[in-house]
Amino acid sequence: MPGSTSSHELDLMSEEIPDIVIGRLPIYLRALNQMAQMGREVTSSRELGEFLGISSAQIRKDLSHFGGFGKQGTGYHVETLRNKLQQILHVDREWPVAIVGAGYLGHALAHYRGFTPRGFRVVAVFDIDPDKIGQKIDGMNVMAVERIAVEIPSHSIQIAMLAVPVEVAQSLANDLIKAGIRGILNYAPINLAVPDGVHVQYIDPVVELQHMTFYLGG
Amino acid sequence: MPGSTSSHELDLMSEEIPDIVIGRLPIYLRALNQMAQMGREVTSSRELGEFLGISSAQIRKDLSHFGGFGKQGTGYHVETLRNKLQQILHVDREWPVAIVGAGYLGHALAHYRGFTPRGFRVVAVFDIDPDKIGQKIDGMNVMAVERIAVEIPSHSIQIAMLAVPVEVAQSLANDLIKAGIRGILNYAPINLAVPDGVHVQYIDPVVELQHMTFYLGG
Repeated sequence: MPGSTSSHELDLMSEEIPDIVIGRLPIYLRALNQMAQMGREVTSSRELGEFLGISSAQIRKDLSHFGGFGKQGTGYHVETLRNKLQQILHVDREWPVAIVGAGYLGHALAHYRGFTPRGFRVVAVFDIDPDKIGQKIDGMNVMAVERIAVEIPSHSIQIAMLAVPVEVAQSLANDLIKAGIRGILNYAPINLAVPDGVHVQYIDPVVELQHMTFYLGG
Repeated sequence: MPGSTSSHELDLMSEEIPDIVIGRLPIYLRALNQMAQMGREVTSSRELGEFLGISSAQIRKDLSHFGGFGKQGTGYHVETLRNKLQQILHVDREWPVAIVGAGYLGHALAHYRGFTPRGFRVVAVFDIDPDKIGQKIDGMNVMAVERIAVEIPSHSIQIAMLAVPVEVAQSLANDLIKAGIRGILNYAPINLAVPDGVHVQYIDPVVELQHMTFYLGG
């Protein structure tokens, strides 16, 4: 594994590596951030696994897709593995992000302090409601959704968080994609239809709650 | 598969069925809800798969863990499959839920209208901040976290959503578990240490964003 990972290499890798493995890398990165904050310099797949409730074999296998970063017997250097994961996930830079929807959830996202340290910065907020347009949220003016076509390209925004009611989610997703958005974090509890090359991730608290009630049930 | 699934059967099943399969059931249920709202009466694993971007073989395999609900060639009856999934996930009833943290995110959760139709009702909100305690959110008084030990058992609450800063998340999780909470939906970006028998699900927008930037990257 060379010192810096070229995008060409990553293109090749992303074809081979299961999406479920990719989905675990940010969780490993979060755990390493926690460890770094606790002052830990070295860890092992066993310790990481216990921390996360994942088997150490799984962690070693996941990381081996990217060349493997630990030495047999000495474990992982926390800072090195953090840097490598940040490179692999392309968060060794800052991504400008838009929020669509300035309701309670949009406000919560705009005020969230956890984005900037991990690679993201909210730079634009849009809403459909004339009463909300022009309001200030965390120093940003809420803009009309009609501005999406202009503001998204002018700020080179590729990622949007969609925090709007179900009824308007698909049509606003279409507007965002037309304006150049390639990644949507969708909080509306519906499945979006998007063209190839656009990535959607879903956050739906009810899905997580129902996952738990399976086990609590009875 | 009998008409109603007993909790004993589910106990047996849950030992065999991979957690990743369980995690997909709420997504199938959400898709079926969408289909029902569109007036669809029948669907197929192929249609569901296209809707969700999951292979039809995967869907058939997942559902076969629970006996299989479709007839060869005729597909699934939307309403029947919805009812079955609601039973399996134990959301054929309403679960009272607590919110801990009355900040922007706690407000967003308290005002979210998507819980009740899908099996959950927010019945209590707690905060640590004296300025917030006593405030009304969506008709509920924000209570001091010291009330957790009394209110959680008195409302028979088994599930809590933890919407607090990282620094206090683990200690409040401990308080909740001591009071009888068995499921925590954790919005704080840290991994919680919990005893066996307590289920934790995580919602962390940065994890989802970093999952997307892997693909957007370069």
